[in-house]
Amino acid sequence: MAAQPRDVVEQYVKLVATGPTEEIVQLYAEDAVVEDPIGSEPRRGHEKIRELYAALEAMERETELHTVKVAGNHAAVSFTMVGTFSGQRMTLDPIDVMEFDDEGKIISMRAYWGPENLKMEPIQ
Amino acid sequence: MAAQPRDVVEQYVKLVATGPTEEIVQLYAEDAVVEDPIGSEPRRGHEKIRELYAALEAMERETELHTVKVAGNHAAVSFTMVGTFSGQRMTLDPIDVMEFDDEGKIISMRAYWGPENLKMEPIQ
Repeated sequence: MAAQPRDVVEQYVKLVATGPTEEIVQLYAEDAVVEDPIGSEPRRGHEKIRELYAALEAMERETELHTVKVAGNHAAVSFTMVGTFSGQRMTLDPIDVMEFDDEGKIISMRAYWGPENLKMEPIQ
Repeated sequence: MAAQPRDVVEQYVKLVATGPTEEIVQLYAEDAVVEDPIGSEPRRGHEKIRELYAALEAMERETELHTVKVAGNHAAVSFTMVGTFSGQRMTLDPIDVMEFDDEGKIISMRAYWGPENLKMEPIQ
């Protein structure tokens, strides 16, 4: 049975915190397209998408899921990621929207966030 | 000066509660496209879009804005609308994503919500 959008979204937010990168990548269809943030150069396919999440590996991360809205094979999710590295704490709280194929793989992800949603601060 | 996406979104959520319908419609560009919910038949242009919001006129409404994420000429907004009519209370809590033109008019709106985000209950 195909994975359900809500389950995939919950798994996604969990894996963004824990990794491994490859498990995040495997939530995506082979030819998926990611715009993070929306309006930036789209990343098409597993190789380009992997680069995005591999960049997280340098950080200790936590995520908190706030809300998921599912409409058929579409979903929107609000969550917060806190990452720490080199004495800095980064907090990002985007809304990501995703579209899924019939197998429950993500075929499109677009992340809504701007400068106001990204905070960097030194760890006390 | 063109209206800023964040201001338009805040105005939108306010007008969904208060009307008038025509002011909501005027937030949209002439050839805007609305999918509410996403996956449903798109409504293109002011006339079709007006029908959607005119349907709210039968209700007393309140809205509460939860969060807005702005990325350039894109925005995502989470809000709740509570409407009452005929002894029923309807609660809808969607995430809407919007794209804006250079004048700050909405050219695309897609609403993420499903059955879990729509509650109907009798007023006590």
